[in-house]
This record gives sequence, C-alpha cells and structure tokens, in this order.
Amino acid sequence: MPTVKGFKFSGVSSGLKSGRNNKDVALIVSEVPAHAAAVVTTSRVKAAPIQICLKRQKSGKGQAVIVNSGNANACTGPQGLKDAQTMCRETAKALGIAESLVWVASTGKIGEMLPLAKIQQGIQESVQKLSATGYQEAAQAILTTDQFTKYAHRKGTIGSKAYSLLGIAKGAGMIMPQMSPTGHATMLAFILTDAAINPTTLKGMLTRCVDPTFNAITVDGDTSTNDMVLILANGQAGNPPLKANVKGAQQFEKHLFEVCHELAQMMVRDGEGATKVVQIDVKGARNPQAAEKIARTVGNSLLVKTAFFGEDPNWGRLLGAAGRAGVALDPDKVDLYYDKVCLVKKGACVSPQAEEQAKKVAQQASFIVTLDLHMGKGSYTLYSSDLGHNYVQLNSEYRT
Amino acid sequence: MPTVKGFKFSGVSSGLKSGRNNKDVALIVSEVPAHAAAVVTTSRVKAAPIQICLKRQKSGKGQAVIVNSGNANACTGPQGLKDAQTMCRETAKALGIAESLVWVASTGKIGEMLPLAKIQQGIQESVQKLSATGYQEAAQAILTTDQFTKYAHRKGTIGSKAYSLLGIAKGAGMIMPQMSPTGHATMLAFILTDAAINPTTLKGMLTRCVDPTFNAITVDGDTSTNDMVLILANGQAGNPPLKANVKGAQQFEKHLFEVCHELAQMMVRDGEGATKVVQIDVKGARNPQAAEKIARTVGNSLLVKTAFFGEDPNWGRLLGAAGRAGVALDPDKVDLYYDKVCLVKKGACVSPQAEEQAKKVAQQASFIVTLDLHMGKGSYTLYSSDLGHNYVQLNSEYRT
Repeated sequence: MPTVKGFKFSGVSSGLKSGRNNKDVALIVSEVPAHAAAVVTTSRVKAAPIQICLKRQKSGKGQAVIVNSGNANACTGPQGLKDAQTMCRETAKALGIAESLVWVASTGKIGEMLPLAKIQQGIQESVQKLSATGYQEAAQAILTTDQFTKYAHRKGTIGSKAYSLLGIAKGAGMIMPQMSPTGHATMLAFILTDAAINPTTLKGMLTRCVDPTFNAITVDGDTSTNDMVLILANGQAGNPPLKANVKGAQQFEKHLFEVCHELAQMMVRDGEGATKVVQIDVKGARNPQAAEKIARTVGNSLLVKTAFFGEDPNWGRLLGAAGRAGVALDPDKVDLYYDKVCLVKKGACVSPQAEEQAKKVAQQASFIVTLDLHMGKGSYTLYSSDLGHNYVQLNSEYRT
Repeated sequence: MPTVKGFKFSGVSSGLKSGRNNKDVALIVSEVPAHAAAVVTTSRVKAAPIQICLKRQKSGKGQAVIVNSGNANACTGPQGLKDAQTMCRETAKALGIAESLVWVASTGKIGEMLPLAKIQQGIQESVQKLSATGYQEAAQAILTTDQFTKYAHRKGTIGSKAYSLLGIAKGAGMIMPQMSPTGHATMLAFILTDAAINPTTLKGMLTRCVDPTFNAITVDGDTSTNDMVLILANGQAGNPPLKANVKGAQQFEKHLFEVCHELAQMMVRDGEGATKVVQIDVKGARNPQAAEKIARTVGNSLLVKTAFFGEDPNWGRLLGAAGRAGVALDPDKVDLYYDKVCLVKKGACVSPQAEEQAKKVAQQASFIVTLDLHMGKGSYTLYSSDLGHNYVQLNSEYRT
C-alpha cells in the first residue's frame, strides 16, 4: 500500500450523499507545512472554495485539504464564501494549525447552500480517522457520478533519499478542464509528495504536467466552476530541495507527469455514459494552437461522439467537424487514420477494405484517430470519450 | 395553395433514399432568368455543390436549382466537383437554358461518390413533372432525417402589383448554420419570389434576414459542409424593381424575414431527437459579440441541453456554461428567467417557490430562458433544442 511520508488521509460520511458510496468529506493532512501549488478553473463563474484557493495560491503554503462532495458550493454568493471559510477555520481548529494553511474544495450540485452543520460534524470525524493509509477512503469521499476511485502512485530516489508521489482524483462529468495558475474545471486532483521541492520549481512542474494531461481531456466539453489540481510537497523525504536542472528534478517531473496522465486517463474512461476512450491526434497543422482548436472541435462534436458510440468510422463527420473549427485547413490534403489503418488519403476514402479495417478498430474500447493536415508542424493530442444513452439518462435525471 | 408567378417545382424519386419518403431529386425553375443571392457555409470543408454555387454567386443570376438528398457530395474530391457540374449541365440541357444559370445543392451522407446515373434519370423525370404547385413534392425531396416538410409563404403588394414569396427548407441535424455570402451549413433553404428586386438590395436583404434567423439556430452545434440559403427573384410581379428606401422595400424585407424565421424555427422544432425549442436571450452583455458567445456556449452545452430534456430548470448548469464562454461576466450580477419567472437574482436562487414555477415553465414544449448580465447593452437571441435519447439513437445508427 503506497504511503507518503508525513501525510495522513481520511474519508467519512456526513449525510450529503446517499447511495452505495455515501462518503462525502475527505481530509488530507501533512505533519508539517508543505509547499503548495495549484491550478484552478478559468471559468468566470468560480465556486466559493476556488476563490479561497486563489488566495492560498499567493502564500504557496499548505498543510491540509478539506473536501466535500455532493454540493459544489458554487453560485452561492457571499454566504457560500463564508461557508467555505468556515470549513477551513473548523478544520484548522480541530487540527491545531493556522487557518491560512488549510485548502478547501467542493464538488456536486451547483446553486445550493452547503449543509454546514453536517459538514462540520464530518470535519470532526475526519480528523479522528486520519491515517497514513487512508487515501482510499479519501479518494472515495471526493467522488460524485464516478464509477470507480482514482489514484496513481510513483516512487523514486533523489541521491540516497527515497521519495513517494501519490495522486487521488475524481471526475466523470462536466469535464473539459481548462486550468491555469490564475484561473478553472469539476475535476479535482490532489497530489501529495514527501519530496522537497523549491516552490517556483513546483509551480512550473505542475503547470507543465497539467497542460498535456488534465487540460487535454474532454468528456462533455463543459468546463466546470470547481476544477482544481493541488500539489503539496512536504519535504519529509529529506532530499536537498529540487530546483530546475538539479539532479533528480527531471525524473521527479516525469513521475509527476505520469501520475497526472494516469489520473486524467481514468477520468475519460469513467466519463459519464462513456464506453470508449478515443485519443485524437492532430498533426501537420500550421501551429499548435490551430491543432488544438481542431482537436477540441472534433473531440466535442456530438456527431463525432455518437459515431464513436455507434462504432462507425464516420470520417465524413470527423472532417466536417475539423472544417468548422475556424482554422486554416485544405480538405484535399487531409489524411486520417484509425490506429494504423489509413482510412482517408488526401481527403478521400482509401478503399472499402480500409473502411472494414477501420470499423474493427472502432469496435475497440480505446483507439487513436489521427488527422494529418499536411500544412505545417503544429500538433495536439486530446483524449475524448464517446457519447451514449447513459450520458443523456444520467444528465437528464441527476442534478449537477 | 401558394404559387409564385413564373416558378415551377417538382420532386421525384431516383433511388438514393429508401423508406416512406423516397423522393430525392428536387427541381425549381423560373420561366425567365432571375436575380440570385445566396449565403453558404463558412466551413473550410465545403461540399462540391457549394463550390459551384460560390462561382454562380459572382454572376448574381439563376434560373434553376437542382437538389439531391441522400448524398452530400462532400469530401468527394475532384470527381465530386465534376459530378456536381454534370448535375448542372444535364439540368440545363433538359431545360434548354444556360448551364451557368443552374444552381446545385446536395444533402445526405458525407464522403461517398454520387450515384450519378440514378441522379441523371431523376433530372429527366423532374423536368417532366414540373408544375406551379409542385413545391410540396420539392420540399419533400430535399429532406433527410427531417420528420416533416418545411415551407413558409407571404403575399404583399408593391403599388398596384401583387407579389408572392415562398420558402422551402430542410434541416434537422448537423445544425448550427454559420453562413455568409462568401462562406457554409446542412440546412438548405430556397426562397422564391416574383417580386422585382435590384441585385444589391436582394443580397443585402438576404444577409440581414439570415443572421438573426438561420444563423441563430442550433440543434447540435455541428456546422455542416453543405449549408445554403438561396433566393431567386424573377421580377414577374411586374413591380418597379425594389431598391433600398424605395416604397415597398421595407415591407418586402419584413416578409422575407418572416419566411426565414418561420423556416428556421421549424428546423429547431424538427431537431434530431428534440422535444423542445428553447429561446436563449442573453442581454446586458458588454457588447453583442459577448452576448452571442454566451448564448452559443449555453445553447450548445450538453449539460444544459440534457437538463432541458429532463425538464429541470437547472440554473447552475446555465450559469456554469455562461462562465466558460470566455467573456467578461460577474456571476453576482446575473439575473435568470424562465419565461417571466425570475429564478435567479444577482447570482442566487430567488426562492423554492420560484424554482417550482420555473419547473412548470420547463415542462412546456417551448419557452424562453433569459440571462441578464447587467454589464452593458449587448444582446443576442439563439434558438436551441433539448438533447434526448433519440438524438443518440439516430446518430449512432444513421450515417451523415
């Protein structure tokens, strides 16, 4: 069972959620104050806890994270902000640490006031139940429509010092994170490490790792009001603090990237109503921005996503979506692949045989669609899911 | 039965489509050459017939329109372009008119070559069957996944001369037209009038009427490769040609707007799998562009559209979508209405009673959601539909 030196976890039930998994308050605590870096949603509608975290950002410090699921505390006005502050204050008090060291996150229904009395009770209980191996309970307590808990782990050494890196995450719907250090998603991920890292280096690593992972996934194209990735590095591994170009930094960043990538992939796999993960590789675009625009337009197209669900290699819809992305594209130059099967060459279908082969690829649980525009060197990779009946079922009944 | 002086119509079956409505070739002919104006899709992937129409644009003339459904002749390369030319040539020959006066349109599956022999036979038959009252057959022959035929009619007088204005249209899926005189959708609309109109005036009127009607609807956010609105004015009413600021021009433009509006509304009502038409009014934005961006993000949000389907006045999702539109917005200033029910005031829910009342509004077949941002005077109206199981069913099985 993975542990991270100096970190404890718990997940308890306070009555906000019903059903099989009714854990709804998670607590993560470091024995000592840690360096903290976070990226949050760029939405103009930011949930109350996100507003608090943007303040914590400035100090770059953190020792605890209190999280509730079942209620997003978003669109809740000044009272919502007070409630998020109360969550921090009560947690700080129960732990005997400074309030400014407590980070807070919420996920669930938008527009309803937090049932604060229940959460306060949850906070007390979660402090009692802290343990070094409690991360599974914490990972459970942050879930909403998720089908499974999500965590990833890496170990390494810096010189003679062993470090550990553990991430837990949630997210299945309202998923197209677009996070920045000043800016938004609801996906939540908390990454804990005992490695010692210089704060600026930590921030840079997190931003670089989040962009091609969490920020490169989409389930339904709906960026959330509550998205956040937070990393806490408490230095308990005892290594000389990592800086850019210092031995070990590269390996640590690779591990951080892998943890982010694994967690992000789990979210797409667990996408609401999703049955497939489709990697959309756009290359040969004029520049990376153009490639990203096309990948996002294709990956969020309803016609493309329902074709994925129907296991139909419908390249006409893919090209149609690419064409409306608002960037330069010459349809007569485009090649399109399903995994290694070249289905379209210079804008036209290669052969009925290729179509048969592509159909087999499209029946897989995950595959890669590559669009080569042959116009330049810009490329982008987006991870998307299909759109099936269960998405409609879930979202016409469940209130987020 | 509405007629337009000097115009004849037909719709026949050539074997491209099966099922109850198997008409698939439509022909519209004017006795004399008419002034023509068109707006076409702005997609970078333009179907072959659209490329031909962009050439016809330059002359501003037209006498016939040949249309097939069942195959979009899009992503079909140089052969597709030749095929569209052949459609024009054969039609011109059979009618004994110049090829340059024949416009062409296609709608249906993307990426398959036209079965030209069948269509050529359809052209011959359609010429035989032309009649002044055949517009219903023509309206039937241009349909694909549509549930019903779409036409609208207005009559008026200019001085002592009576004029008639008739529009036929198709469109149910791949609907978020973004058309311009140089640019793309698959919706098709053909508007015929016997009024005499100056070509520049005709072009101006069409552009002004299309923007708040066809260009302001969305079913699935997927702009098509084949969208087009074409108007032919053959002058047979005998009025002195209409120019800007000439008596009668304003009334005629009002009628043209009404025909466009009616046809556009029918498309949303007939949206694939749609059960509701929701008008999204954004006002109080910094400028009209910001208002449009928010309206489109809200109107295309999967979470919003599935909430519409679920008849849930889920204002949190509406605000969440508005927040990710990428334009300035202060959530604490936003008011939100379902028809006349004020559900959200300054970013917070008004009362449980208001929520009950909004729920009743959301159960209607059509209603208006108003978002007032209180930041300026910019406004925009978008017509959207809900997203239900039938959309997924249809588009995971049907190949567009």
